[in-house]
Formats: sequence, structure tokens, C-alpha cells
Amino acid sequence: MGLERRAYNPKEFLFDPALLKDLDWASVRGYLSPFITNEAPGEGWLWVRPLQIEDFDKGYLQILAQLTSVGNVSRLDFERQYWKMQQSGGYYITVIEDTRSKKIIGAATLVTEFKFIHNCALRARLEDVVVNNTYRGKQLGKLIVLTVSLLAKKLGCYKMSLDCKDPLIPFYKSIGYKLEPGNANSMIVRYEVDNPS
Amino acid sequence: MGLERRAYNPKEFLFDPALLKDLDWASVRGYLSPFITNEAPGEGWLWVRPLQIEDFDKGYLQILAQLTSVGNVSRLDFERQYWKMQQSGGYYITVIEDTRSKKIIGAATLVTEFKFIHNCALRARLEDVVVNNTYRGKQLGKLIVLTVSLLAKKLGCYKMSLDCKDPLIPFYKSIGYKLEPGNANSMIVRYEVDNPS
Repeated sequence: MGLERRAYNPKEFLFDPALLKDLDWASVRGYLSPFITNEAPGEGWLWVRPLQIEDFDKGYLQILAQLTSVGNVSRLDFERQYWKMQQSGGYYITVIEDTRSKKIIGAATLVTEFKFIHNCALRARLEDVVVNNTYRGKQLGKLIVLTVSLLAKKLGCYKMSLDCKDPLIPFYKSIGYKLEPGNANSMIVRYEVDNPS
Repeated sequence: MGLERRAYNPKEFLFDPALLKDLDWASVRGYLSPFITNEAPGEGWLWVRPLQIEDFDKGYLQILAQLTSVGNVSRLDFERQYWKMQQSGGYYITVIEDTRSKKIIGAATLVTEFKFIHNCALRARLEDVVVNNTYRGKQLGKLIVLTVSLLAKKLGCYKMSLDCKDPLIPFYKSIGYKLEPGNANSMIVRYEVDNPS
């Protein structure tokens, strides 16, 4: 079900849904069998679109909880964070809705960062990727990651990166991500916060 | 030379310089010998502070060029990107100025990201760390990275991460960063852009 078939107000989304049109799927055709895109996701009841406030009620946080701890996020907390993201810009949280059940069944976040290097470039990052376990076998993981990756390309980003655990390396390799030899380390330091979830 | 000894207008900086006061240096004391902080950096002519527009003339881009390609960034390009960062929020580019020569001799970027996970947490990233080669032996690399890391802690971030090449792992380990077993992979995809630098 393409976006063009739906009436919508762009302001009702975290980012303009028009950005998800005409992505360069031809460049990643080889990664998908059968070939699907965000505008033709293989099942008519799937809708790939930007996050909306209403997704609080459509299970967006519940699906994130399949990924990591979410904690007790009230609707007010959710709205506040949503508006902070929208005001800041650079947050492209994209979801897959099952329009039959009106539930979010997959999501991925693209975050962009302004740089001075590389001619004041834009850098992209992939965050918080999750697809509901009960929807396996439909390439929805590839679909949602490739959607935001192609969006990063469309926005003019020179590079998109992600951090992942060892078991996910083959998945990301299967859609074009690489571990660059000698330059593939992600290091972290953790801080205690007042409201751990 | 402490910030308190200088008269300044907070609006003249990318972020409020008061944020760099009273960082939790006690928590990282063991990483430094002799002990230095951003407010007492060991030499009276060093000034650790937020980026300013004027740093275009003080060699900020030239020092970034020691790190990677910068390209042809005009003063107008620089100012546009600076204002985009300030308007967006979440950009904490911190520099070390040699106030004798009025040159930028070190820099590091902290970027923060709003999350829904972990009770609408704030995530931190370290980017674009560089210290002029001619200032070795003064712990300035540790100083600038720890300054922005402690700023992330002060801002309430639950985690700070960085991507680095293999030879830099010992340096970051020496100041508390870790490669988490099974979860230390950074993968990327690169895109061609119209104005490669």
C-alpha cells in the first residue's frame, strides 16, 4: 500500500513521508529475493512510514522492548521526546505498520550528524533496529534497514555506520555493510544515571 | 587559565561554556599523571572551551585536516554549519586554544542523541578527536577526550561510544573505554557524494 494512496498531513509524522518516495532501490536489488521496496513491501497490509505520535498506542515501545530495556515511558514522556527529536532535526525513525492490526511490527532509526570534515558533510547512523519475531521470513529486517540506508543516501550522507553484536554481522554483510579492516572497533564507557530502566 | 578569569558572552560559543565547569574529574583522576583538568590544564596558556566562529581563523579546520580530509570549506560554509549545529542542539565541539599563538591545538566533538529506550535516555558519541603533533607529552589527548566524556556524564548520558582504528585501542583503554566482548563491531557503508573532498 503506497503512501500515494493515503491522504496525510506531513506534519503528523516525525519527518516528511515524501522523503521515503523514490529511494534508490535499484542499487540494492541484489540483496533481496523476491525484490521488495518500502513502497511495495510484498504484502498490501504493510505500511513503511515515519514514526507518528499515535505509534505510542500502536505498540512502538513494546516492539523496542524486544531489543532492550525501555522502562516506564508515559505518553507524555513519549511526546516530549518526539517533539525534541522533531525540533532538533536529523531523526528519521521509520516504522513498519501492520495496517490490519494497527500495530508497529518493525522499526529502525536513522540519525544524521553535521560534520565540518569532508566539505561540511552529513554522516548517518543506524540505531534501534527491530522486527517482530512473529513476522519472520518476509525480509522485513532487510526492508527496514535498507529503507533508512537509502534514505541516508538520498539525504546526501557520505557514510552510514552501525554498531552491532557478533551474531548480527552476517545479516548486515548480506545488505552491503562492511567491517573495514583495522577500523571496525566500537568502544564504550557507561555512566550510571538517576533513572535506570 | 580558568574560564572564570575571562569575560565572555555565552552566545559567542557553540554551547554554554558554563557546562565545562566542575566536571567530575575525581572519577578519572587515576588516568592522569600529573593530574590536570580542563580548568587547570597544566599550562597557563592553554584554554579548553567550546568552539567559536572565530576558530575558523584560529586554525580549527587546519587541525581537523591532520585527522582526515576537510576539503575547501569557506568561511561562509563554516558559519552555516556552525549555526546548523547550534540550532539543532546536541553538538558539543570542544577545543584547546594556545592563547599565546591564538591557535587551536586540539579538539574533540561530543554529539548527543535522544532515545526512546532506557527511559527516553540520552546517548553520547565521541567524534573527530585531534591534537596537534607538536604538543605531545602534555596529556592533551587524554585531556580533551576526558573533558567531553565528563561533559556527557554531566549531561546525563547513559553511554558514550566511539569508533576507532586498531592502533588507538590502547589509548582509549587507558582512559576507561572498553571493547565489550561480542559487542564491539562498527560496520559501515559508504556512499558517493557530489562534492567529495
